[in-house]
Amino acid sequence: MTDPADLGFARIDLKRQDRTGYPEVVYCAGKSADQAEAIMVRMREQGLPVLGTRAEPALAERIRGRFPGAVYDETARTLTIGGGGEAAGLVAVAAAGTSDLPAALEAVRTAEFFGSKVLLSCDVGVAGIHRLFDRLGELREARVIVAAAGMEGALPSVIAGLVAVPVIALPTSAGYGASFGGLSALLGMLTACAPGVSVVNIDNGFGAGYLANLINKGAAYAHV
Amino acid sequence: MTDPADLGFARIDLKRQDRTGYPEVVYCAGKSADQAEAIMVRMREQGLPVLGTRAEPALAERIRGRFPGAVYDETARTLTIGGGGEAAGLVAVAAAGTSDLPAALEAVRTAEFFGSKVLLSCDVGVAGIHRLFDRLGELREARVIVAAAGMEGALPSVIAGLVAVPVIALPTSAGYGASFGGLSALLGMLTACAPGVSVVNIDNGFGAGYLANLINKGAAYAHV
Amino acid sequence: MTDPADLGFARIDLKRQDRTGYPEVVYCAGKSADQAEAIMVRMREQGLPVLGTRAEPALAERIRGRFPGAVYDETARTLTIGGGGEAAGLVAVAAAGTSDLPAALEAVRTAEFFGSKVLLSCDVGVAGIHRLFDRLGELREARVIVAAAGMEGALPSVIAGLVAVPVIALPTSAGYGASFGGLSALLGMLTACAPGVSVVNIDNGFGAGYLANLINKGAAYAHV
Amino acid sequence: MTDPADLGFARIDLKRQDRTGYPEVVYCAGKSADQAEAIMVRMREQGLPVLGTRAEPALAERIRGRFPGAVYDETARTLTIGGGGEAAGLVAVAAAGTSDLPAALEAVRTAEFFGSKVLLSCDVGVAGIHRLFDRLGELREARVIVAAAGMEGALPSVIAGLVAVPVIALPTSAGYGASFGGLSALLGMLTACAPGVSVVNIDNGFGAGYLANLINKGAAYAHV
Amino acid sequence: MTDPADLGFARIDLKRQDRTGYPEVVYCAGKSADQAEAIMVRMREQGLPVLGTRAEPALAERIRGRFPGAVYDETARTLTIGGGGEAAGLVAVAAAGTSDLPAALEAVRTAEFFGSKVLLSCDVGVAGIHRLFDRLGELREARVIVAAAGMEGALPSVIAGLVAVPVIALPTSAGYGASFGGLSALLGMLTACAPGVSVVNIDNGFGAGYLANLINKGAAYAHV
Amino acid sequence: MTDPADLGFARIDLKRQDRTGYPEVVYCAGKSADQAEAIMVRMREQGLPVLGTRAEPALAERIRGRFPGAVYDETARTLTIGGGGEAAGLVAVAAAGTSDLPAALEAVRTAEFFGSKVLLSCDVGVAGIHRLFDRLGELREARVIVAAAGMEGALPSVIAGLVAVPVIALPTSAGYGASFGGLSALLGMLTACAPGVSVVNIDNGFGAGYLANLINKGAAYAHV
Amino acid sequence: MTDPADLGFARIDLKRQDRTGYPEVVYCAGKSADQAEAIMVRMREQGLPVLGTRAEPALAERIRGRFPGAVYDETARTLTIGGGGEAAGLVAVAAAGTSDLPAALEAVRTAEFFGSKVLLSCDVGVAGIHRLFDRLGELREARVIVAAAGMEGALPSVIAGLVAVPVIALPTSAGYGASFGGLSALLGMLTACAPGVSVVNIDNGFGAGYLANLINKGAAYAHV
Amino acid sequence: MTDPADLGFARIDLKRQDRTGYPEVVYCAGKSADQAEAIMVRMREQGLPVLGTRAEPALAERIRGRFPGAVYDETARTLTIGGGGEAAGLVAVAAAGTSDLPAALEAVRTAEFFGSKVLLSCDVGVAGIHRLFDRLGELREARVIVAAAGMEGALPSVIAGLVAVPVIALPTSAGYGASFGGLSALLGMLTACAPGVSVVNIDNGFGAGYLANLINKGAAYAHV
Repeated sequence: MTDPADLGFARIDLKRQDRTGYPEVVYCAGKSADQAEAIMVRMREQGLPVLGTRAEPALAERIRGRFPGAVYDETARTLTIGGGGEAAGLVAVAAAGTSDLPAALEAVRTAEFFGSKVLLSCDVGVAGIHRLFDRLGELREARVIVAAAGMEGALPSVIAGLVAVPVIALPTSAGYGASFGGLSALLGMLTACAPGVSVVNIDNGFGAGYLANLINKGAAYAHV
Repeated sequence: MTDPADLGFARIDLKRQDRTGYPEVVYCAGKSADQAEAIMVRMREQGLPVLGTRAEPALAERIRGRFPGAVYDETARTLTIGGGGEAAGLVAVAAAGTSDLPAALEAVRTAEFFGSKVLLSCDVGVAGIHRLFDRLGELREARVIVAAAGMEGALPSVIAGLVAVPVIALPTSAGYGASFGGLSALLGMLTACAPGVSVVNIDNGFGAGYLANLINKGAAYAHV
Repeated sequence: MTDPADLGFARIDLKRQDRTGYPEVVYCAGKSADQAEAIMVRMREQGLPVLGTRAEPALAERIRGRFPGAVYDETARTLTIGGGGEAAGLVAVAAAGTSDLPAALEAVRTAEFFGSKVLLSCDVGVAGIHRLFDRLGELREARVIVAAAGMEGALPSVIAGLVAVPVIALPTSAGYGASFGGLSALLGMLTACAPGVSVVNIDNGFGAGYLANLINKGAAYAHV
Repeated sequence: MTDPADLGFARIDLKRQDRTGYPEVVYCAGKSADQAEAIMVRMREQGLPVLGTRAEPALAERIRGRFPGAVYDETARTLTIGGGGEAAGLVAVAAAGTSDLPAALEAVRTAEFFGSKVLLSCDVGVAGIHRLFDRLGELREARVIVAAAGMEGALPSVIAGLVAVPVIALPTSAGYGASFGGLSALLGMLTACAPGVSVVNIDNGFGAGYLANLINKGAAYAHV
Repeated sequence: MTDPADLGFARIDLKRQDRTGYPEVVYCAGKSADQAEAIMVRMREQGLPVLGTRAEPALAERIRGRFPGAVYDETARTLTIGGGGEAAGLVAVAAAGTSDLPAALEAVRTAEFFGSKVLLSCDVGVAGIHRLFDRLGELREARVIVAAAGMEGALPSVIAGLVAVPVIALPTSAGYGASFGGLSALLGMLTACAPGVSVVNIDNGFGAGYLANLINKGAAYAHV
Repeated sequence: MTDPADLGFARIDLKRQDRTGYPEVVYCAGKSADQAEAIMVRMREQGLPVLGTRAEPALAERIRGRFPGAVYDETARTLTIGGGGEAAGLVAVAAAGTSDLPAALEAVRTAEFFGSKVLLSCDVGVAGIHRLFDRLGELREARVIVAAAGMEGALPSVIAGLVAVPVIALPTSAGYGASFGGLSALLGMLTACAPGVSVVNIDNGFGAGYLANLINKGAAYAHV
Repeated sequence: MTDPADLGFARIDLKRQDRTGYPEVVYCAGKSADQAEAIMVRMREQGLPVLGTRAEPALAERIRGRFPGAVYDETARTLTIGGGGEAAGLVAVAAAGTSDLPAALEAVRTAEFFGSKVLLSCDVGVAGIHRLFDRLGELREARVIVAAAGMEGALPSVIAGLVAVPVIALPTSAGYGASFGGLSALLGMLTACAPGVSVVNIDNGFGAGYLANLINKGAAYAHV
Repeated sequence: MTDPADLGFARIDLKRQDRTGYPEVVYCAGKSADQAEAIMVRMREQGLPVLGTRAEPALAERIRGRFPGAVYDETARTLTIGGGGEAAGLVAVAAAGTSDLPAALEAVRTAEFFGSKVLLSCDVGVAGIHRLFDRLGELREARVIVAAAGMEGALPSVIAGLVAVPVIALPTSAGYGASFGGLSALLGMLTACAPGVSVVNIDNGFGAGYLANLINKGAAYAHV
């Protein structure tokens, strides 16, 4: 009898939901379209919802041909089959500028996929700080805030000094020169002078959205 | 009429508790003993509990002479006057090795100061992974886990693959050579292959403990 | 009389087998197809088996047209003419994820070319550590283990704490952002907290496979 | 006849005032007390005002023994003999936190030495942004603003989005871990998302103060 | 009633001119042609002059189709609609070599857009220093100088030792190998041994030109 | 009943010998003298031989007071109680220069402690390559070679091109300036152009010696 | 009357030959084909020999159409019109491997252009050190040696320990992973343990060849 | 019969003078006073002149007690017994500032030890470039020039554009902040825009002086 987790080139972690509360996610960037599709098909066969990240349009086309209900977000590059559901609690995602939208939207789609309600605020970077204050009321509604920014990455510091909830800093590779592909934003966020901030990898909108959902819902999950 | 926040060389953020739920903390490393003491005295005059981090023994001696109830943890280098209290929920702090204890204990004392109950697990690094499995039951009791490690910093990845709660990765400067003062642990944690992990600055036990308490209690605070 | 080692643009090290036990290998990445082919033809004329690494499909096509027995592995990008043989001892190669397969397979093909028997285990990364424990029995059969991983590169540490044989850490460039092209995996492996680990260059599957074979067979060679 | 500029181990740039409008300054860090004193004595003999930076207390003691009018600022580590004067225009210097005071005060003393009026604002870092807004009226009075900050270095971005004058960003080495001795603040300031910002070297309060004075007074000097 | 600042994917900072004296500028690199065009159209509707930086020729073509008065500089990659005007004071821009022209011209076009008169000097790098001395008279006419250079970035140091006005150092990515994309020029400029120098991001001609104009005109603006 | 592995501040990995063939080793650098001594005492109570690395002379004095048979090597900074024994096979350790001796000797003492016979060759760096050729006969007797070098770290490449056994490259922090604390040697060794080389952390003589012994004896251990 | 040095976009340094003994060289990488051609034409009009480096084949085609005597080396990417001549003294250029040939040949063509006789030795890398010894007699004939190598860059150290003339180390970008684009070779060469070595930029064959010619001929030039 | 080269802890390279024209030099930084003294005594017994670099005053005292003719330069930290002699040709050493003197003087003493005549020019940094022009006549007398500078390291570029002889760039660790211990000067010199420049390690005055002497005298030595 064959093991449904085993695809030869990969072993799906079918027990992840038991251990961590949520199913495995398909990171498409390092995989061929054949590999990504085979994994998604097998997960659907096991009754699991599917979230694919870093999915190229061609892969999305192919998957939507096979699963008509699949949804693709071109900016976030996320591909989902199923997921979502209750949409409880509130996660806020704030993007400093237009160039930060791909990472920010990946966070939005990920948190929604796992069941959170998400509010996105665009263009609230610190160079025009009144735009952030305009949205502060909304941000204070959330249980956790994702702050996405490139360049100097100052947004999480400023937000964390104004709210009473955890701030997940999401550095992006937006910028040039001394941005060094997001390194300056990353370092700035790690050394944020306001407490309550923690940081994920550069452009890791998925990680930020996953963690935001975990914080949003975790208390309920872990203790009931 | 003078402003109680103003000490000339510093302006205490007396409104921080209103904005963020918790009072300001005194980072002693960049201040003279005179400056640190003056700030702590003023905060006590305003009725605030005091947490000093990176406090040297000589400062601790001086403060305990003035405030007999002050408590100093030599390993964590934390100095507290008041704080603590209800001790609700559970935060777990896991330290990979003995060299990671200063940072890990700073996280413990910080989370306790703000009111969390904290469980510390020592020497659970991945080189002898059975020691981690021995403590897994305990770790799964917590609402959030701080994982402190230097060198390759693999502990948060392994833990995050085994639990259903947020993991705060705390890189430490333990190690030598290619550890580059904690940089290798920091990079390893930022690129952790398991979701649910976010990272604070190297040796920033305070930041990890503050955020752990926020996650532990945040839902209650933000929505009642 | 001409020197068979001399091709004008290159001098083949025909005496390497005498000095080091194994013939020279052709690193195709820095050479034109003409150069690579000329070197391979000359080596065959001298009766040597040929291993080409980083070979593009077009070069493989060309070489197979000339040497029908040549074998090309598209994922590993290895091209072999002859080699292999006895297949003694056992080398284990463990890959953390699908994205690590190209480097891992280069190690597999290289060790096989020089005469080792090789076992490959896929998708045994530390985020789902039960998958590693499922393969532990097999890994313990080997005389030496190659552990390939990108991102935080924690796999070699965990394996080395569980086995009694040398572990060759093979960092890969899989990942993005703070992976910095494999640097984070490299640093993590160099600072592995378990002894018995040594490291080769990023994506250097050839070096890992060569060394694994040397350890597997070396004692016999060097002392008989 | 001897050249008054020549001290053997050094050649004072006595023509600098003619070329650049201001006399040379003595950077004491790389010089012995004997060397620093000899240079200062020679400059006084030539009728020049003296500004020594990075001066240790022992040197200050010695110089004040010889020049009773010499003034030493222990925090800024500046030593001045003469200078100052008209005190025209207004330069503002803003320091994010107490640890940034040495660099900020070096800027203050330098700008004052060359004849600017200077206003210092302490503890206006972005983690408690209301403290910055409290001082905004004052900052807007200045013709140029120096913004000193360590850690993530977000202060210049925020200020530059709020004022109509040049902002000189002064990164400091305050911080630890991923601050990397001021590198994170430096990179953050170089990639500031608000225009009107330029950056000097880490802890280079002298450079910031010199340039601030130049901008404050330059138009008058260069064109009359 | 809709907010004219709000485009959904972006919020234009329409109040920037009130706060900082100058309107917002459109950084085209991180935006789709649709997004860039929508922002420019909205700004024109609000009566604002438009400066787009890092604009590709295709975008320029499109915008010129819509706004016949738009001007595109192919080397600088700037696109302007309106702006310019009085052309008061003098800003000098010096480029070390031909490869530094794109950044230097971006500075020229930016300063002109905001109303400064600008003089450009090409090929005045330090390897043939007589070429710099040939232009020194012209440079001394300016109220502020932008010095653009790649490779070792020595130009600002040399110029600042010869003039009495602020020097804005503009590092460029010209060069190869140990230039590391402009890093060597950047570090060289930050550690310039002559005072009066400050630095902007690599290839940030816009930032240099904006600041040059601010210094050129600031005194007048801020105090009348 | 208490767990003998548990010392409160540390958990000794008493099962390591079962899993990996060798007992745990005490890294003294991150521990107080009290902690180091307590661990060593407990290990002796469990009948284990003790190897302490990075031990300061004061600790050595103290341990020798308690265990008269303890042996301290001042250069290697190793402290051993028991261990050694059969002394089978041959490991060669080659040091490029006198400054590399501390790391090289740590490798020697470690391999001896675990039962290997070790031959040390000093001052065989590539700047006087005849010194290496003088020792080549000896080096070829060994089953595995540790090559320790700082600065450019070229020794392992040269040796690996001359022998038929694995070469463990041990970068040292000897050098200054562009050595960057051993980084240049480390990078040089990772990119060694000869196959058969793998690398351990900078100054990690223990890791090199442990692995050398493992390779020397492993085949016998793992398969009997 | 127009200045023949002035091309608008560039100023040719026509006096360089007077100051430094040799005419300016055209670095084609940062210039359009139009710009490169215009400069070459103007130099020929002034009677100067032309050396263009980093010239693409298309530019070479164009220039050869105009100057039939122009010579293009496809591997070195050099384009020469005139130059060469006496061919006095001997410069040796040694290349570690085939991938180092482009940089090594750029050095060869440059030294020849300025009048040196040059001997090229290929594939003399340290992994097969007998190949270097085979050529040692030839290398000892030279007045100066250029040693080109990528990866660990050990070649200059080994050569400098064997000869009595200056060695110019030419790091190349050959390699991958921890080569970091030539950085590991560069650092290795800077920290070479043998004296008599100095280093030029990564892939800067022109600089190496220019300097080699200068050393070869300089004594004669400077003092007659 | 014992080998005079062998001191147990070290093997002196007694044949170096035969191979390279000059005897080995003693780098004292990595050696105990006992080791350094033993090597110097043995070299004197073999009739060799001795040059010790990075020698501390205590070692100098000790050696002068034994060899009354030994000469110590406190700034250069060089210790010489014998050497010097003919003093032929001319080497120029130019130091940008007072802080660069230790490295510059190490170059002076080294070149003198091996027989060159040396001229030192102090304080000729590019911030006051007239000071360099004042010395240009002298510099043009030399056959080779060493240019020592910290911070932005622009001096070699400027000099190389003005002279017809090789320039050895000697980066120093003078500076702070973004100097990164000499890294900015090193990178600046490697990317110098003027040809004829090559670079040695940071603070490696010995290497610069050794090479300068080699160039100064090499032609005569190698070919007579």
